[in-house]
Amino acid sequence: MADIAVTLADKRGTLPADDKLGFGKIFTDHMFVMDYETGKGWFDARIVPYGDFDISPAAMVLHYGQAIFEGMKAFRTEDNRIVVYRPVDHLKRFNNSADILSIPQMDVDLLHAGLNKLIEIDKDWVPQSLGTSLYIRPFVISVDPFVGVKVADEYKLLIILSPVGAYYASGFKPVKIKVEEHFVRAVKGGLGEAKTPANYAASLKASEEAQKEGYTQVLWLDALEQKYIEEVGTMNIFFKIDDEIITPELNGSILNGITRRSVIQVAQDWGLKVTERRISIDEVYAVHAEGRLQEVFGSGTAAVISPVGELSWKGKNIVINNNQTGATSQKLFDYITSIQQGRVADKFGWIGEVTKI
Amino acid sequence: MADIAVTLADKRGTLPADDKLGFGKIFTDHMFVMDYETGKGWFDARIVPYGDFDISPAAMVLHYGQAIFEGMKAFRTEDNRIVVYRPVDHLKRFNNSADILSIPQMDVDLLHAGLNKLIEIDKDWVPQSLGTSLYIRPFVISVDPFVGVKVADEYKLLIILSPVGAYYASGFKPVKIKVEEHFVRAVKGGLGEAKTPANYAASLKASEEAQKEGYTQVLWLDALEQKYIEEVGTMNIFFKIDDEIITPELNGSILNGITRRSVIQVAQDWGLKVTERRISIDEVYAVHAEGRLQEVFGSGTAAVISPVGELSWKGKNIVINNNQTGATSQKLFDYITSIQQGRVADKFGWIGEVTKI
Ligand SMILES: Cc1ncc(COP(=O)(O)O)c(C=O)c1O
Ligand SMILES: Cc1ncc(COP(=O)(O)O)c(C=O)c1O
Repeated sequence: MADIAVTLADKRGTLPADDKLGFGKIFTDHMFVMDYETGKGWFDARIVPYGDFDISPAAMVLHYGQAIFEGMKAFRTEDNRIVVYRPVDHLKRFNNSADILSIPQMDVDLLHAGLNKLIEIDKDWVPQSLGTSLYIRPFVISVDPFVGVKVADEYKLLIILSPVGAYYASGFKPVKIKVEEHFVRAVKGGLGEAKTPANYAASLKASEEAQKEGYTQVLWLDALEQKYIEEVGTMNIFFKIDDEIITPELNGSILNGITRRSVIQVAQDWGLKVTERRISIDEVYAVHAEGRLQEVFGSGTAAVISPVGELSWKGKNIVINNNQTGATSQKLFDYITSIQQGRVADKFGWIGEVTKI
Repeated sequence: MADIAVTLADKRGTLPADDKLGFGKIFTDHMFVMDYETGKGWFDARIVPYGDFDISPAAMVLHYGQAIFEGMKAFRTEDNRIVVYRPVDHLKRFNNSADILSIPQMDVDLLHAGLNKLIEIDKDWVPQSLGTSLYIRPFVISVDPFVGVKVADEYKLLIILSPVGAYYASGFKPVKIKVEEHFVRAVKGGLGEAKTPANYAASLKASEEAQKEGYTQVLWLDALEQKYIEEVGTMNIFFKIDDEIITPELNGSILNGITRRSVIQVAQDWGLKVTERRISIDEVYAVHAEGRLQEVFGSGTAAVISPVGELSWKGKNIVINNNQTGATSQKLFDYITSIQQGRVADKFGWIGEVTKI
């Protein structure tokens, strides 16, 4: 495996108090960087002080959006170990996104080693109190200075780290979600399955409108019929109907969420019936009318589990489980976060140990 | 109007010989830059030496793709004037893209003045020989250092200039186009109408495959039925059938091409029947079989007119007009380029004068 050169920062910053962390605003002292050139492959894996870098105004990513990213988390356990949640699964998905965007494959072992080394160097930035974590953002951008649409020949890979506060500072609060009827995020044959900037650019207008109307996020329907449920802005979605856990099947236009996989595995392990299938918004409204819709929740790295208390579709609102967090949502959240924070045994092999401090 | 501060480069580069220009690789000595912050609006319009700039690794554009661009051209006429082709139409479309991407509107007059000033300063970079031009790339990127999906609060606008060679160095050559059956570029409710990186990211895989198979570009079909014709990679598309010029109607998922508008206006001015309507790929193949498909051509800023000699759809190839440039394609190309280069009167008011040198 390639060597990872390290250049340490002259001055170290300090981790703010847990309640001052927020999300995505604070970055640690270092970052991992690697470059790619056609013919040469990925080279010069290194850890350097975190900071701005030079970019050409003609850098392809700024014009043609050839880029991918990942989002995962590290935690400081009660016994002061630092662990990463499903790092290899995230890095494999990173490579899957690369494939969809015609970006060269990366060496997962090298990235994993680089990530661990980076976290070790910046270990003082990993917060400890319940719900806090170190958010990890690997990303690749195309950087050739070239104005013309083509697959790039030069890329830059970076991993940056951001300590983040508890998503639920004052306990679970079920969210209000707007079912989007007009805008579309992704379509069969498009980029929906990749974690790539394009999909998020496509979500901005709808999210902005939904937020103005008082909703937290939108629930996307399929592009073809505006009928089948896809996913939420940055979460996959689950429905508990007649004690069965149902989530939209992977269809190429939604993200193959890592938390989604965890939820499915845990729920099955508990003996719950879990079904991945097409589910229409009409069906959700119909079973709700019949009193059979027990819970709705989103799953994603940021929130882990996010109970949905209200859905609005074509001006018709339905309230789920009396706008209370359902038992399964709560239990899944408690269990998965306990694994992440090392409070229960890692029976699924999800935890990547960084270092013992 | 805001002042435009100018900082000149210490050293000037030199324009390469016309046959060494190529496309999109060479940039002039200066660029126009302007910044935006929520609450402050657009500010600090300036012309500075062309060069790399600092970007935060957390800059939103690198992660969430909130960005837009334009592409237009300036020409040096035979009598040594420098003119821009439909600058205000391009800048208005820039604002339309901004709206779709939730990017704040820009002052078209200020941009136009900035562009003219920039070109004036870099006037020695505008090539003169037939077919050459100065390609103009205005773009906006979101730059807040924030990891989280939202509409940004900070943007940077740049205009960069690139002298480009003749697209058809050795005369027209009809291109081979693959009708895409699997991948999709844009869908109703998506970003297709905007000039935004996301749409080009979505086109890479399909273009890469088509090029491997020996085609120049792909012709996109609609996302819903994979049946109706949309546009080519970076061109709109026209069909001449029974002496009628037909082009797909603007449907929200294709670009409202400026060259497309020029073609429609010129053809109508010539007394040709021009129809904007849905047209299916089946129809194209059917009229071809009946011997009624006279010409197919693309329209776009880069090539102006690009005759299509061959289409391939589901493994079935059709040859158009014996793989020869059609009379209408040729006549449109000659006429529109003559206006651009000031060789015929600008009867439509398309030409923006930069300066008399
Ligand atoms: C579009 C989208 N869907 C789903 C998810 C949830 O995926 P994961 O559980 O891997 O975080 C995310 C967040 O990463 C996302 O951005
Ligand atoms: C997707 C797409 N369609 C069409 C066009 C043609 O538009 P215009 O004639 O304005 O250059 C372009 C190029 O700009 C394009 O990128």
